Amino acid sequence: MIQFSINRSLFIQALNATKRAISSKNAIPVLSTIKIQVNPSDITLTGSNGQISIENTIPVSNENAGLLISSTGAILLEANFFINIISSLPDVSLDFKEIEQHQVVLTSGKSEITLKGKDVEQYPRLQEVSTDNPLVLETKLLKSIISETAFAASTQESRPILTGVHLTLKDHKDFKAVATDSHRMSQRLLTLDKAATDFDVVIPSRSLREFTSVFTDEIETVEIFFSPSQILFRSEHISFYTRLLEGNYPDTDRLLMNQFETEAVFNTQSLRHAMERAHLISNATQNGTVKLEIAENGITAHVNSPEVGKVNEELETVEKAGSDLTISFNPTYLIEALKALKSETVRIRFVSPVRPFTLTPGDDQEGFVQLITPVRTN
Amino acid sequence: MIQFSINRSLFIQALNATKRAISSKNAIPVLSTIKIQVNPSDITLTGSNGQISIENTIPVSNENAGLLISSTGAILLEANFFINIISSLPDVSLDFKEIEQHQVVLTSGKSEITLKGKDVEQYPRLQEVSTDNPLVLETKLLKSIISETAFAASTQESRPILTGVHLTLKDHKDFKAVATDSHRMSQRLLTLDKAATDFDVVIPSRSLREFTSVFTDEIETVEIFFSPSQILFRSEHISFYTRLLEGNYPDTDRLLMNQFETEAVFNTQSLRHAMERAHLISNATQNGTVKLEIAENGITAHVNSPEVGKVNEELETVEKAGSDLTISFNPTYLIEALKALKSETVRIRFVSPVRPFTLTPGDDQEGFVQLITPVRTN
Repeated sequence: MIQFSINRSLFIQALNATKRAISSKNAIPVLSTIKIQVNPSDITLTGSNGQISIENTIPVSNENAGLLISSTGAILLEANFFINIISSLPDVSLDFKEIEQHQVVLTSGKSEITLKGKDVEQYPRLQEVSTDNPLVLETKLLKSIISETAFAASTQESRPILTGVHLTLKDHKDFKAVATDSHRMSQRLLTLDKAATDFDVVIPSRSLREFTSVFTDEIETVEIFFSPSQILFRSEHISFYTRLLEGNYPDTDRLLMNQFETEAVFNTQSLRHAMERAHLISNATQNGTVKLEIAENGITAHVNSPEVGKVNEELETVEKAGSDLTISFNPTYLIEALKALKSETVRIRFVSPVRPFTLTPGDDQEGFVQLITPVRTN
Repeated sequence: MIQFSINRSLFIQALNATKRAISSKNAIPVLSTIKIQVNPSDITLTGSNGQISIENTIPVSNENAGLLISSTGAILLEANFFINIISSLPDVSLDFKEIEQHQVVLTSGKSEITLKGKDVEQYPRLQEVSTDNPLVLETKLLKSIISETAFAASTQESRPILTGVHLTLKDHKDFKAVATDSHRMSQRLLTLDKAATDFDVVIPSRSLREFTSVFTDEIETVEIFFSPSQILFRSEHISFYTRLLEGNYPDTDRLLMNQFETEAVFNTQSLRHAMERAHLISNATQNGTVKLEIAENGITAHVNSPEVGKVNEELETVEKAGSDLTISFNPTYLIEALKALKSETVRIRFVSPVRPFTLTPGDDQEGFVQLITPVRTN
């Protein structure tokens, strides 16, 4: 039966990272528990909601853990409740001791708390992913790819495949991440330094956002392993599994055009703030759109709500070229697109009032392009 | 028609303070607006939810306001929406200009936003409170009296009078604030430096909490004016009105006893944290109580939930005297009582397992006493 002592704050940190995979309202009750597996030289915490699973290992060799394992074993404990209890204990360290009938006695300072656990045999087996031949990426790069694309995925389950981000590797070098909800699209291209095995997967965007929270910036690189139905992101101590979405991802390449009629470069932040003001009013209008008027003497944005009021914005541009154009769109899409851009300026290219327009970083950094579909108005 | 320009961030600050009185879901639609009254030498913002009303004055003489009034008048604007718009504007300053049909044009930088307002005649007249003969208190003292008592008021409308804090002044000097929800009571006594007119009022505890948010610590003193149905708290630029509760407040003095059988002094924070742990488990029990055992060899706290687990805490004491005693109570009441105490230690005095126990500051600072009723268990 389990017995160990550990530094309480490091334990809380590991528990909280693992908890990100655990939903307290899971339809499968056992998934609201956290699995604690104590081995001779480490402790592994496991949480899962059936979609994503996280395994977090605390090795005896981690000096900050102050981990002293006297006896091994495994047990399940109600995750939220257990973490609240651990967080409330008074002392720097904590003794964890399993007693009869899957009970656990926690001792810290002059507190002694006994909790009822569950038999570990009730916990589902997580699907296995073979850990050969990983794709290795910098954590920072992977997180930046996610923040550039995941927001553009659909949040509606009517076309489940669009709730994911499409990741592909072709010719062992050409990496592409793309997401679209059919109103806007965001795509990041990348050429890998080292050749790797080609893949073509669609990962739920929600899983990718959780990945971003779990893999902190101290973790330098991530190993990625693929199986037909799952993907595993692994660092030294954390394994993050997510199921893949099934189905064919639509061909998004055909949406991108090389020709355009009108082009302007804006300051990213100023344009975003102007659109946020426009959105406050457009929100109250029937079609929720802002109208952009590109003319000889400048670019202006307009919203007119008969109920609430109107906005007129003169937009400053860094550059401007091409023909005059008037185009209407939902400012929310432009706001979110601008949030995903890290460059100080943004280049926007228009084809016509009824064709999607593209956004690229103003510094002409390559590989990142976004697309927004206009709304036809009369 | 109104025309003025103002420093935007100072305006936002004043709007947000006024908004605390405004509920966007008020049954009386006009109360979701903010009233803007522009006089030759100041602007007064008014918000009200029918229970509390706030008037916030920005004088031309306030140098930080950069206030330039060109034309006076009054108008109503949808409070939340207006504040969101003002907050989103680009420039340091803002021009506000009323045009035909109660419309307002806001100009800031290259943004121009037109909003529809309402005729000020629709706004209800706030009841007047005669401003003679104020009671003057330090803001800090008044806020500390509120934080020591308001939490103990009832949140249930079954006995409306108990949702208030009972404030009285007797013999021109003896101030008392008391609140109880019939399970616990908190009372602060005070002797005023200067004699004032006696009063006996019950103020909704919710209003007092709002007062605490509106009157920041920079405001040194508050003038308090009484009318039969309202009370007015006033500083140089803010007037805060709240209605009073009607009815007779119960006599709480008879609950306080001078005799006790058992007495202990604890460290306030340690006892609070022990009770927070106990509460995590007691929460899962049927009667939700913690049992305190005071014996020759020490004081211990126990909770036992057949479903979840149990807690045993050894409580350290600074002092301990009197007979052994076992008493059960809801730890939430003790946690909240300890939160209201600013002293490092707390003195708790018990009469019997079925009689309320009292808490006083351990430093024997006078005038603050709390009382908690135990729960009978078998």
